[in-house]
Amino acid sequence: MKEIGIGILGFGTVGAGVVEGLQRHAELLQERTGLTLRLRGVADLDVTTDRGVTIDPALLTTNAQALIEDPEISILVELIGGTGVARTLTLAALAAGKSVVTANKALLAEHGAELYEAAAKHQTELLFEASVGGGIPIIRALREGLSGNRIERITGILNGTCNYILTRMEREGLRFADVLAEAQAAGYAEAEPSLDIDGIDTAHKAVVLAAHAFGAPVQMADVAVRGIRDMDAMDITYAAGLGYRIKLLAVIRQTDGELDVGVYPALVPHGHLLADVSHAFNAVLVTGDLVGDTIYYGQGAGRFPTASAVIGDIVDAARNQASGQPQRLTVFAPAKQPMPLRAATEVMTRYYLRLSLIDQPGMFGRVAQILGRHGISIASLMQKEARTDDFVPVIILTHTAKEGAFVDALQEVDALDQIGAPTVRYRIEDFT
Amino acid sequence: MKEIGIGILGFGTVGAGVVEGLQRHAELLQERTGLTLRLRGVADLDVTTDRGVTIDPALLTTNAQALIEDPEISILVELIGGTGVARTLTLAALAAGKSVVTANKALLAEHGAELYEAAAKHQTELLFEASVGGGIPIIRALREGLSGNRIERITGILNGTCNYILTRMEREGLRFADVLAEAQAAGYAEAEPSLDIDGIDTAHKAVVLAAHAFGAPVQMADVAVRGIRDMDAMDITYAAGLGYRIKLLAVIRQTDGELDVGVYPALVPHGHLLADVSHAFNAVLVTGDLVGDTIYYGQGAGRFPTASAVIGDIVDAARNQASGQPQRLTVFAPAKQPMPLRAATEVMTRYYLRLSLIDQPGMFGRVAQILGRHGISIASLMQKEARTDDFVPVIILTHTAKEGAFVDALQEVDALDQIGAPTVRYRIEDFT
Repeated sequence: MKEIGIGILGFGTVGAGVVEGLQRHAELLQERTGLTLRLRGVADLDVTTDRGVTIDPALLTTNAQALIEDPEISILVELIGGTGVARTLTLAALAAGKSVVTANKALLAEHGAELYEAAAKHQTELLFEASVGGGIPIIRALREGLSGNRIERITGILNGTCNYILTRMEREGLRFADVLAEAQAAGYAEAEPSLDIDGIDTAHKAVVLAAHAFGAPVQMADVAVRGIRDMDAMDITYAAGLGYRIKLLAVIRQTDGELDVGVYPALVPHGHLLADVSHAFNAVLVTGDLVGDTIYYGQGAGRFPTASAVIGDIVDAARNQASGQPQRLTVFAPAKQPMPLRAATEVMTRYYLRLSLIDQPGMFGRVAQILGRHGISIASLMQKEARTDDFVPVIILTHTAKEGAFVDALQEVDALDQIGAPTVRYRIEDFT
Repeated sequence: MKEIGIGILGFGTVGAGVVEGLQRHAELLQERTGLTLRLRGVADLDVTTDRGVTIDPALLTTNAQALIEDPEISILVELIGGTGVARTLTLAALAAGKSVVTANKALLAEHGAELYEAAAKHQTELLFEASVGGGIPIIRALREGLSGNRIERITGILNGTCNYILTRMEREGLRFADVLAEAQAAGYAEAEPSLDIDGIDTAHKAVVLAAHAFGAPVQMADVAVRGIRDMDAMDITYAAGLGYRIKLLAVIRQTDGELDVGVYPALVPHGHLLADVSHAFNAVLVTGDLVGDTIYYGQGAGRFPTASAVIGDIVDAARNQASGQPQRLTVFAPAKQPMPLRAATEVMTRYYLRLSLIDQPGMFGRVAQILGRHGISIASLMQKEARTDDFVPVIILTHTAKEGAFVDALQEVDALDQIGAPTVRYRIEDFT
């Protein structure tokens, strides 16, 4: 049976999961592929810590370059993370003509163009199913299953940590800081959580999705990113009362030939399947012009779910190599005329607004006047009881208007003497 | 640019959708594949009816065999349906070395082994993404994205007609016959609806999924099939009151190395994502040993969703042909030791039971005694008010027991003088 040699760069949580998966399913993978997938080396700076998986010590090395140069190894799996060493080694592996499998969304988001070009130049393959949505085969769905569609919109819950925090805040009425601290203590959130809670990780994934679904060379700087760090439990409660759940979304959408890519917490209506994605699960709603709405759901992170995606890519790379076609899919197929990006201020959206009024009588009329002057009309309005700080929360759900109109209007509103604190706002996603 | 010739057999709803999709996205598909996908002929017995798509009349023919023999055509798309002519032409196309794309679940379920063998023998490809779940790329997920997993269970809502009927029965309190009649009038259900409402269509799809997820040569005769024809709105209402929604499910599950494949309406708990799949949508929950639970959701039928899957397969076949590898994926990879089927009576399950008691006092003790003697214990129990026919409905949710125990116990129960009508039973799926 033909043998394909595999080297793994990075022996952390996912690396150990891949090693265990390859061991556990050695026979199954042979049956499915007609090939022997042989692990020939695992490189890490630390080769002594127990990773919870049995491995022949002779396979462990601190010399990643040696694996890249090993002629018996034709597939390199990059699980180092970050954009430093990972980039150098990925480029070296591609230059050596190896197929590379990576789970590294930051690397793809920040250096994708360079990597895609290197893979094309050296006529080899770069696979990255694990970079978005953990074990969910969303990249494959976009590049293959839905290849007959013009993609219209992608809306994803792509960060398990944020979704876990929001789920617990809503269900248990907890404060953001408390859930975060607990999640950190339990190992569900990083000690330095900003990549997750500030939306950066979600934005990395949005850039990867935008590239492969729209053929769009979107940069991180093109993405309007807002995280959940400042989320007040009050807004989650008010939103729930109005029939919405707040989710951190990545939204990639084309409107009239323009693309906008954003990451922000938004109100999703109860009853929509995305509203029911709880805890650390991820889900991606992909709308294609032929297929309509499709949803892909699963665990977005973790040792074995991520290993599942990595092994799926290894299998694909092995099949392609065995068939003498390591470039069956174009690594990145840019659209002939990449869609221009829509200016952030031109994006049409609805908003949930929470105003903090100090003084009540006659006051609301002035706010409504300002909104109206900016073309923003009110869909519904609730005045809540004053809280201890004596602000009267007034909740407004608006109709659709331009983002820029909201920015301008709220600047005026917040400058009013009778506004006690900056107006809190969240987009509403109606999926219409 | 390299050109790949395509012939379509069957110019019905889906065929016209494929023609339109190929026309609409000619340029996009070129960008994505680097190939020109050229439609070279469409065969149908009826080439005069307007299909709502503009097509060069010279492409239309009544001679399917001519398309199969056309040396310029390397991909044949079988959209005839049924297992007669479709089988003959599919075998002829494979024998001619053509790649075949089919949406025909009945053909695969009933003649899969013969077709897989023919494709292997003639070293060509048989693709069938559209056969299950319409536009949802579920076949690709199983054969490629999740190839690193041992699949543990698949639970699918696979028939849009049934799901549409059940959704309307629940939401509007309607009777089965009324919704069916209305759906038929509106074209959502076939004039002869038995393939759908008796679960046969769902069973066809279950056989296809079982084959490719478990490498199991399951036959239609191996599938325990129950449809929704006898569904009483009363049970939908009672189930809703208990926190469940009734869905027609395909369940393919391995337990202790044995496989069971069944199609039946079952109670799915509120809050589970499958419970929220409404109207004509389909969804498939796939549980893998590494990835855990994943869900795939979308439109399970219809002109464009099905065309989306067909075109995705055409693209794959074209890519594989262009790379000189028309057999990148084994058409069917049977497990080396196919899992034995679990005897239907040995399957462990929970049940919702609705007893029709004529006489009340002391009566229930006798039922409980019979259940207990068969090892069935009661999880919860409700007695409802008598209906006009004077039966007292008693609802029992059981704990888990063997299917055979339920069959035996209910035979005894229903033989009691005080039971006015056969006990109604539905499985409960807890996804544990």
